Amino acid sequence: MKILDSIDSPEDLKKVKKENLSILASEIREEIISSISKNGGHLAPSLGVVDLTIAMHYVFNCPTDKIIWDVGHQSYAHKIITGRKCKFKTIRMYNGLSGFPSRFESEYDAFGVGHSSTSISAGLGFAVARDLRNENYKVIAVIGDGSMTSGLAFEGLQNAGHLKTDMIVILNDNEMFISQKVGAIAGYFAKLLTAGMARKVEEKIMKTVSRLHNFGSSFRKFVKRVKVMLFPGMLFEEMGFTYIGPVQGHDINNLIIILENLKDMKGPVLLHVITKKGKGYLPAEENPIKFHGIGKFNIVTGEPAKNERVTYAKVFSDSLIKLASSDKRILAITAAMPGGTGLDKFARKFPDRYFDVGIAEGHAVTFAAAMVAAGMKPVCAIYSTFMQRALDNIIHDVALQNLPVVFVLDRAGLVGEDGCTHHGAFDLSYLNYIPNVVIMAPCDENELQYMLKTALNSDKPCFIRYPKGPGLGVALDETSYVLPIGKSVILKEGKDICFLAIGNHVYTCLEAARLLAEKNVNAAVVNMRFVKPLDACVINEMLLKTKRFITIEENSLIGGFGETVKTFLYGSGAVVECIGLPDKFIEHGSLKILKKKYGFTCENIVKKALQIMLT
Amino acid sequence: MKILDSIDSPEDLKKVKKENLSILASEIREEIISSISKNGGHLAPSLGVVDLTIAMHYVFNCPTDKIIWDVGHQSYAHKIITGRKCKFKTIRMYNGLSGFPSRFESEYDAFGVGHSSTSISAGLGFAVARDLRNENYKVIAVIGDGSMTSGLAFEGLQNAGHLKTDMIVILNDNEMFISQKVGAIAGYFAKLLTAGMARKVEEKIMKTVSRLHNFGSSFRKFVKRVKVMLFPGMLFEEMGFTYIGPVQGHDINNLIIILENLKDMKGPVLLHVITKKGKGYLPAEENPIKFHGIGKFNIVTGEPAKNERVTYAKVFSDSLIKLASSDKRILAITAAMPGGTGLDKFARKFPDRYFDVGIAEGHAVTFAAAMVAAGMKPVCAIYSTFMQRALDNIIHDVALQNLPVVFVLDRAGLVGEDGCTHHGAFDLSYLNYIPNVVIMAPCDENELQYMLKTALNSDKPCFIRYPKGPGLGVALDETSYVLPIGKSVILKEGKDICFLAIGNHVYTCLEAARLLAEKNVNAAVVNMRFVKPLDACVINEMLLKTKRFITIEENSLIGGFGETVKTFLYGSGAVVECIGLPDKFIEHGSLKILKKKYGFTCENIVKKALQIMLT
Repeated sequence: MKILDSIDSPEDLKKVKKENLSILASEIREEIISSISKNGGHLAPSLGVVDLTIAMHYVFNCPTDKIIWDVGHQSYAHKIITGRKCKFKTIRMYNGLSGFPSRFESEYDAFGVGHSSTSISAGLGFAVARDLRNENYKVIAVIGDGSMTSGLAFEGLQNAGHLKTDMIVILNDNEMFISQKVGAIAGYFAKLLTAGMARKVEEKIMKTVSRLHNFGSSFRKFVKRVKVMLFPGMLFEEMGFTYIGPVQGHDINNLIIILENLKDMKGPVLLHVITKKGKGYLPAEENPIKFHGIGKFNIVTGEPAKNERVTYAKVFSDSLIKLASSDKRILAITAAMPGGTGLDKFARKFPDRYFDVGIAEGHAVTFAAAMVAAGMKPVCAIYSTFMQRALDNIIHDVALQNLPVVFVLDRAGLVGEDGCTHHGAFDLSYLNYIPNVVIMAPCDENELQYMLKTALNSDKPCFIRYPKGPGLGVALDETSYVLPIGKSVILKEGKDICFLAIGNHVYTCLEAARLLAEKNVNAAVVNMRFVKPLDACVINEMLLKTKRFITIEENSLIGGFGETVKTFLYGSGAVVECIGLPDKFIEHGSLKILKKKYGFTCENIVKKALQIMLT
Repeated sequence: MKILDSIDSPEDLKKVKKENLSILASEIREEIISSISKNGGHLAPSLGVVDLTIAMHYVFNCPTDKIIWDVGHQSYAHKIITGRKCKFKTIRMYNGLSGFPSRFESEYDAFGVGHSSTSISAGLGFAVARDLRNENYKVIAVIGDGSMTSGLAFEGLQNAGHLKTDMIVILNDNEMFISQKVGAIAGYFAKLLTAGMARKVEEKIMKTVSRLHNFGSSFRKFVKRVKVMLFPGMLFEEMGFTYIGPVQGHDINNLIIILENLKDMKGPVLLHVITKKGKGYLPAEENPIKFHGIGKFNIVTGEPAKNERVTYAKVFSDSLIKLASSDKRILAITAAMPGGTGLDKFARKFPDRYFDVGIAEGHAVTFAAAMVAAGMKPVCAIYSTFMQRALDNIIHDVALQNLPVVFVLDRAGLVGEDGCTHHGAFDLSYLNYIPNVVIMAPCDENELQYMLKTALNSDKPCFIRYPKGPGLGVALDETSYVLPIGKSVILKEGKDICFLAIGNHVYTCLEAARLLAEKNVNAAVVNMRFVKPLDACVINEMLLKTKRFITIEENSLIGGFGETVKTFLYGSGAVVECIGLPDKFIEHGSLKILKKKYGFTCENIVKKALQIMLT
């Protein structure tokens, strides 16, 4: 009989004897490892905070007290403790538990999340509302050191420091950003953890003194530098927080004492907790980046299930390296996603031309815009859903000045198990109305090479969007050339109906056309390549042959490719059927299930085509 | 003969004797005051940095060296010095100089701007590119204390602190944010300026000690607090910058010495300069908020040209106060625009329910979302163009969780003289594809009252967009009621053509219908009220009477209202003509000129209607 068997709520947890809590932690870890090895998920982040989660639910009274997770991929133990143990095996599956906190799933999930750095702002909202309503509950925002690099977290911190409301921010510092040396904040955290740095301090002082002889006394600087070492947390104290820490994050009983002590403190408090990503599962401890978000894996060996096909990310990275080898102006920028975007390889090859700016998408884009103004060719690789965070920078800094930054949007379209916060469902819609921009989507990983070259040769801002994961397994051409901007390719002529496709559904359409031929329907297939500028010529050409069109895109139907085609064809007398995402947030589940549900299948295209043939 | 007469470039400036620079500053101020009194503009910010601008151009060599302004509304002296003196009288006029730096206008404007907090990111882009290209120029970002409250500035600071590239950030601290007490950063700046705070320090220490008896020694806290007072700039030093200051910003010769001293310093340097907004023009010094951005005014008295009609902002503010009087859950949030949004009045009435979060639009939105989750009714008032900075927060925190935050977008549509960075040209497009949201636009200031009440009663996130400046002068109803969501109003029946209008062009359409009646064309006019959900019923009803439609909206035609109507009417056989903004960034100029140019006139609607009647 496990202790975990008795836990169906935080109330149950509070009945466990303190000396047994670390056994419970092991049982929870086992449950997490077992389920994630089958379903995939964010293993390392969740393992890292099992002890902290137990301590929090031991001390606080949820759902009255509000625990607000940041990013939320570390909330698995929280889910298990708060009544979702039995459903945990369904995590990230269609109709199963979400991989992230969700208000629709549980009252214990005070605020839904999936993107980074929202927790302090949200926590402050709860705290202020509580005070105005004369309620009396605790608010705890749990934020990682990586999330702290974002401007949004800073905005939240500074507003909280100003309002002085009672709230607790737990900085879950798993040193990921220290090891990756991203941003001054990372360096700052590192300093907080380092004692006895007297020698370095001296060195720094001497440097400072030598360059600062005009300003202030050397003594003043000396004292200042020494103080940073002696008194950690100054940055947060400057922002108006009471800083406590750093404390070890895997000693549950000690965490309980600390949380008990600070839960009634007045004003904003920041507790700095040091945790180990992947804690309790050796392969994850040893390689936390690999186990950050992972697919199915073998529990014994830690080996992930093999993916045979090369990913879009890899093709992007390899192509960029090839192009950068012959053009020193080419740079790569990522917002804390070196692995996911494939840029880790570029970083090893061209460390001087690689910039990981932290989770700071807005800065990444403005930084890139200025680099173009200064004569360089930056390629800014950000996931489709995260690029939403830089819309104003795209409009105001890039497009308005018509600076040819190259943007690469991985994870465009459906992403599967990560669900509603992560689908790249909107990029065509949030980009299409922006003047000056070029938007393209490769039909396969080979065409991605051509598009990257095209974008780097363009005099306009270019966006290349492509899906998560493996390509189609097509052969990769050795050399690529520049594509004519705004020109599509007719892959198959046909007189009965015309498929206008963007992205890899070009292939779905080709297969549909083949099936339709068996039914004596002669379908044309056009690889549109560009959403903006739209190839008006090819559509007019097709219009001479048929008045029946089907468009297909993995994006919201509103403001996307299909709507653009419809607007263009308005009044032409053509029938246009658009396949795309409906006007709702799309749930999580396997790509196979979701693609079928939303009509991105050959069968659906054939069905729609036959329906249109009847009109 | 003025000294200014001899200045056509920074080279000319360098020939002026140092003892004459303050005379030159007065002459430049005179020129600015004279032109802005006629054209309107950002007077107080530009007057505040005349001396700093002269000192910068005296020391640095532009355009080789790059001065990067933040927001850019303080760049008038820069424009006058860098070859645009003769055209300065045309500032903000159609075909005249822009009110902001622009790469299209001058090579001295290294990076265009209009929104806040981009300068550090942009400056870092230039600095890094310079290093990679082995070039050798200086990069100077000039940022105000207000702009420093934005997360984007923090992202730029921390990346610069990490990369350690040579660049200078000049913090132009005009204490605006101190007087307005916005955010912890403001408090921090205030501390930097205050000496001899021993008593306060002691008080703080005693408080800290009493509440922190569990953590650390009181001595440790004591030393820390004292040091914040003794050693300013610690926050920037923690971020990796060398902090210098604060220095007085109106002694040109002293500024020249300081800039000469620091221009060859290594690594990122922050120079903290204290300036006075409106410096040199008494009415502006005394009331810098009024003179921040101002229309035409009388130079002698400082009195602005009167606007007789009540503004949309005022009606919004008054309505909100009325509603908040009977519902304690109603709150107001602004991102540093209390005056422009009209919320200053609300702030005086309900200080506890008013939140100015600084220039932190993303935080404002997430903060509001959590407040709804905690049982309150926040109204978040942000200009249309600035709301672009919070897109992800709208999608990820508000819409995805279907939290009924009320958003009020002032400055939607054309704004006139502020031009391309400030037109609210895109909000319908960047909102329309977001699931769950309601988007409405009042036809006049009276309807705004109804919409505000409607939004506050809705169970969905609602956006109300309306234009800058005065309403139409209609009577304001004493009481308002909740409108049915998604329902339009037929204002005039007609069988020949139907005008579907959103916003105040409802009136333009009514007038057009009147003129058309004289030509025996019977036009219907529908006040659509809602862009989302679209009133499908009324359009179908109209379709029974006529197959001719004209839509009108002050928004990009791509992804906006007209396109939505076209998509809906696709295949109906109706002719639809859309009036809206074309796919380009719209220039500055008077509203009258711009509205005529882009077809938002009664004459144009009549012309289009008559054309359609021929089809």
